[in-house]
Amino acid sequence: MIADETLTLGLIGAGAIGSLHAAHLSYRIPRADLQILADVVEEAAQGVAKQCRIPETTSDYQRILERPDIEAVVICSPTETHARIIEEAAEAGKHIFCEKPIDLDLGKIDGALTAVEKSGVLLQVGFNRRFDSNFRRVREAIQSGEIGEPHLLHIISRDPAPPPIEYLKVSGDIFVDMTIHDFDMARYLIGEEVEEIYATGGVRIDDAIAELGDLDTVLVVLKFADGTIGTIDNSRQAVYGYDQRVEVLGSKGSIRTANNFPNSAVVSAKDRIYRDLPLHFFLERYVDSYLEEMTQFVDAVLSRGPSPVTGHDGRSAVVLGLAARASYDQNRSVRITEISG
Amino acid sequence: MIADETLTLGLIGAGAIGSLHAAHLSYRIPRADLQILADVVEEAAQGVAKQCRIPETTSDYQRILERPDIEAVVICSPTETHARIIEEAAEAGKHIFCEKPIDLDLGKIDGALTAVEKSGVLLQVGFNRRFDSNFRRVREAIQSGEIGEPHLLHIISRDPAPPPIEYLKVSGDIFVDMTIHDFDMARYLIGEEVEEIYATGGVRIDDAIAELGDLDTVLVVLKFADGTIGTIDNSRQAVYGYDQRVEVLGSKGSIRTANNFPNSAVVSAKDRIYRDLPLHFFLERYVDSYLEEMTQFVDAVLSRGPSPVTGHDGRSAVVLGLAARASYDQNRSVRITEISG
Amino acid sequence: MIADETLTLGLIGAGAIGSLHAAHLSYRIPRADLQILADVVEEAAQGVAKQCRIPETTSDYQRILERPDIEAVVICSPTETHARIIEEAAEAGKHIFCEKPIDLDLGKIDGALTAVEKSGVLLQVGFNRRFDSNFRRVREAIQSGEIGEPHLLHIISRDPAPPPIEYLKVSGDIFVDMTIHDFDMARYLIGEEVEEIYATGGVRIDDAIAELGDLDTVLVVLKFADGTIGTIDNSRQAVYGYDQRVEVLGSKGSIRTANNFPNSAVVSAKDRIYRDLPLHFFLERYVDSYLEEMTQFVDAVLSRGPSPVTGHDGRSAVVLGLAARASYDQNRSVRITEISG
Amino acid sequence: MIADETLTLGLIGAGAIGSLHAAHLSYRIPRADLQILADVVEEAAQGVAKQCRIPETTSDYQRILERPDIEAVVICSPTETHARIIEEAAEAGKHIFCEKPIDLDLGKIDGALTAVEKSGVLLQVGFNRRFDSNFRRVREAIQSGEIGEPHLLHIISRDPAPPPIEYLKVSGDIFVDMTIHDFDMARYLIGEEVEEIYATGGVRIDDAIAELGDLDTVLVVLKFADGTIGTIDNSRQAVYGYDQRVEVLGSKGSIRTANNFPNSAVVSAKDRIYRDLPLHFFLERYVDSYLEEMTQFVDAVLSRGPSPVTGHDGRSAVVLGLAARASYDQNRSVRITEISG
Repeated sequence: MIADETLTLGLIGAGAIGSLHAAHLSYRIPRADLQILADVVEEAAQGVAKQCRIPETTSDYQRILERPDIEAVVICSPTETHARIIEEAAEAGKHIFCEKPIDLDLGKIDGALTAVEKSGVLLQVGFNRRFDSNFRRVREAIQSGEIGEPHLLHIISRDPAPPPIEYLKVSGDIFVDMTIHDFDMARYLIGEEVEEIYATGGVRIDDAIAELGDLDTVLVVLKFADGTIGTIDNSRQAVYGYDQRVEVLGSKGSIRTANNFPNSAVVSAKDRIYRDLPLHFFLERYVDSYLEEMTQFVDAVLSRGPSPVTGHDGRSAVVLGLAARASYDQNRSVRITEISG
Repeated sequence: MIADETLTLGLIGAGAIGSLHAAHLSYRIPRADLQILADVVEEAAQGVAKQCRIPETTSDYQRILERPDIEAVVICSPTETHARIIEEAAEAGKHIFCEKPIDLDLGKIDGALTAVEKSGVLLQVGFNRRFDSNFRRVREAIQSGEIGEPHLLHIISRDPAPPPIEYLKVSGDIFVDMTIHDFDMARYLIGEEVEEIYATGGVRIDDAIAELGDLDTVLVVLKFADGTIGTIDNSRQAVYGYDQRVEVLGSKGSIRTANNFPNSAVVSAKDRIYRDLPLHFFLERYVDSYLEEMTQFVDAVLSRGPSPVTGHDGRSAVVLGLAARASYDQNRSVRITEISG
Repeated sequence: MIADETLTLGLIGAGAIGSLHAAHLSYRIPRADLQILADVVEEAAQGVAKQCRIPETTSDYQRILERPDIEAVVICSPTETHARIIEEAAEAGKHIFCEKPIDLDLGKIDGALTAVEKSGVLLQVGFNRRFDSNFRRVREAIQSGEIGEPHLLHIISRDPAPPPIEYLKVSGDIFVDMTIHDFDMARYLIGEEVEEIYATGGVRIDDAIAELGDLDTVLVVLKFADGTIGTIDNSRQAVYGYDQRVEVLGSKGSIRTANNFPNSAVVSAKDRIYRDLPLHFFLERYVDSYLEEMTQFVDAVLSRGPSPVTGHDGRSAVVLGLAARASYDQNRSVRITEISG
Repeated sequence: MIADETLTLGLIGAGAIGSLHAAHLSYRIPRADLQILADVVEEAAQGVAKQCRIPETTSDYQRILERPDIEAVVICSPTETHARIIEEAAEAGKHIFCEKPIDLDLGKIDGALTAVEKSGVLLQVGFNRRFDSNFRRVREAIQSGEIGEPHLLHIISRDPAPPPIEYLKVSGDIFVDMTIHDFDMARYLIGEEVEEIYATGGVRIDDAIAELGDLDTVLVVLKFADGTIGTIDNSRQAVYGYDQRVEVLGSKGSIRTANNFPNSAVVSAKDRIYRDLPLHFFLERYVDSYLEEMTQFVDAVLSRGPSPVTGHDGRSAVVLGLAARASYDQNRSVRITEISG
């Protein structure tokens, strides 16, 4: 890796997460050179491009794939376009960062991953939480043997409020939209594959979610290949804000994380001891992890290193989401091989 | 309730827990008058009686039931004798405190409870953790509406080290020996009945436990009548000591407890920030709750009040233990009605 | 020390703290045998005696000193009687536990201590906080070298509310009534003598305190013989309750304690993360330390061991209180030798 | 304030703190346009300029003052040059951000402040800790009345290790080099002027510091105009890392802050419960506050708003440092008017 080498990138999708990645690539990652931004609404692309001083915009992402100087593409377009763009980008020889999920259809995922494999480009899937310093510390404790062999894992992952119903109509169910992050976290922390899953849940927050056939409160049990048992607890509404914690019991000790707060101040008043609420939602809580994931993507491409979050990782999280849904629907434990073949 | 009224008691069983109750009744509960202590090994009874200044000892618990001045009996003998002694004590018109579990056989439990009901005596089962100040605070938060309707419950309950194999051979499996406390805690906190259970687990700590057909690491999912979903996490060995925590997410907030520690001191050293381990095991951690449960038993009898932990509570925890075992054996979700009729 | 040996005691003063010690001696300290209780208001003595099953009461404490079977006396009478009773008890050959302060007059203190020395009885002064598990842990960290040589010490010691003005009129100023505990704590923790003191303060809570010439908010700086610098922060009113914390920076690390709480529950609500207030005042916060100090007194007498809190300790805390007052009055640093000779 | 308006700046001094400000101005503050960087060693300026894409470098800071398009200058050169450059920049009509301290000589400070006042430019002094989210929360609690009127303040401010002796030889003593930040913090939090000061201290860490006539461990008592009493505790060496905490007791409650940590993970091992050390030193701990102070400088200039940290603030902190030294040297309480006139 040559220190002064830079990576020339294009970015597709000027929405909230696309804008964030654009700002990071433009201002926070010295080795990145973001040259072009695509959005079907070109005005959106232009607005972000101005703020981030990106030279070119386009309404047609193909323009990015056609530019020979572009070495890597960051895909932040809607989910249903991911698999197709991955295939095309791979064929064009571009390295790829793609937001999660790759797709909700395993066939399409496999098509995309095959194209990536064939072309030999690097693919990194956007599971940003892997780059959070709390969760990395937990992974290190497991990898290094600090807490011995893992026995029990708990992931608590709750949103401050449900997304709009319109979003829920198109995002897939809670397992593939929300729990998917936790499935990846579980695999990342334990470093093993999940073999069996049991999921239960209900609608406790908003009946409109029930009308969609979706759930807003779920509990998932994971059985890993090494015998570790894990749980994931999801709620679409923790009134106190974003709740993102994990805890692992191992043979030599346990490790657990707490939420992140805007300040550490504690007030002792005449009726209570209190502190302010945790960082409210993912843009506040995970901003550092978004920067770190993109920095690592740039570094991985420049150093021809392995991808820190592979296509297999992206596929596995979707498989677990589908298995969880099957388990919930049939109220039984489901083996992953039933879903994934 | 007349303030100066006292309750005359006899106690059966001079083992560890019997001795603790004897000391509390003799020295810490002014309205209790412990007059007689029975143990099949009368020397054991005599040793405790001397320390606690108890006037009479006997090797035959029937002597207690025969004494007309004895109003209440505390049963701390081995589990297999509980149901029979409850029946006899009820027939003798004695109020009864009985250590958990009542029995591991539902038929015997039902026999004992029928005798209690017929005689009209008060029966309190020894689920001491209900009297712990941490868990009481959680129950209050739920009962008062402070956190709204409960949605998700987590109980973590881990021992510092497995008991001797000889103990495990006769104590029933982990679900009825260890998880039973947590089943009662779950019902106590949520204030609802469990309708369905899913249990999984393994042997991660000691292969000798596997040879008994028992487990040392388990995860149980509870579905309550009101839709609350709960988990219980048990390990026979948390190397850092007794881990006893609960956490509840409700519609208006969450509440969680921490372990209790021998001191609050935090040391900042050149490599770490650290504190001492939590209180090591149940005698240290729950000593206050043992005192409070016995104080409330005495008060309940003297005030003709309801029992704070009824025979139904005692039976329900055993039912849940049996359901958990069935779930584990068959790797499926089990409805409580399958066990309890 | 013979395990079965017991110590026969008399107690003088049936007020709040006398009653607490009586209950501990009667019920919680098996090797203590409290035989007689004196109070100028004999009805007060009789009430406590009944609750604690103490055989004899008297309105004249001399009766205790005359009884040849009484080996030790616990002095909980008003401060102005302490020095005289200590002298008389010493002359009668009784071992002595005396509540703090011995007296506010150094001459009287010296008279009492001389009598004790001459008779060879054991004298323990009632600085109960030394027996608190938090502060003991801090002392251990210093004594064992865990945090190296101490450099800086902070003691925070705040009451939930000022005492009645009637009490303040007779209790001496804040330095000898309230800070005295912290002076002893400072000497106990660091294990060195204070050489110089600087005190400042004001009246921020109740102007009636100013009218007495007293203070309600003070800050004291201590310079120890070994170079350690300490501060004591006192307020008569912390609206959130009793605040009792210490912190020490040493050459190898620091140690600090937190307050004690009635439970560990933390609630996350829609506007705040909160917990209940700490234990409200000294009877709640220090009940275990009162029991431990009396247990150690009984043990020290029975084992002919040294006193855990000597007459010198009792005198030193008063000296520091007088030096603090002189410093405040003259707004200058005062050397202890100026007060103590 | 026009949203799209930008501020054109020059920066003097390409050392550690100058580089940090340069990076923030170049990449993190969209409304800033850093055009020129000066350092007496022009190679140093060129290195930073390349990383931060700054168009021009110079070895002569006068070049910055001469450029008519430069609206504001950031002074990060050695302390002895601050006052002179402030005067020259003010005369050139440039708004000024100057690192602390302005100077160690009050006459020179007054000369610089007079020049600033005459020219009407905005001057902001680099007390970055005011922009830390923890301390801002404390200030808000006081300003808003959340904790009532302040009574007692404690500032703990300890470095992980002493700076090189070469640095200490030229940095002034500990009071003007290190405590100066805490003097400013005290004034910022309480919002009142200090009227009297008492300082003590010693050399506990490195005898070479004693040879310089300096101290490495100090304790300062502050008396504010409103009656609040404060302490500052400084050590040049807390082996566990940078310790930066404050605590305020007010009439309606207290507020305190904790250190910031690289992660929230807590490990429970077989001998201890531990976590990683806090953020090690000021560049890690205060990076966000450096960014915020510079952002506010840019905003203040663009909006013609008041300076968030005025020349008076900068002067006051130096006055308190000089008063503290006088107090230490004379071992007496010193009134600020003795120093400041």
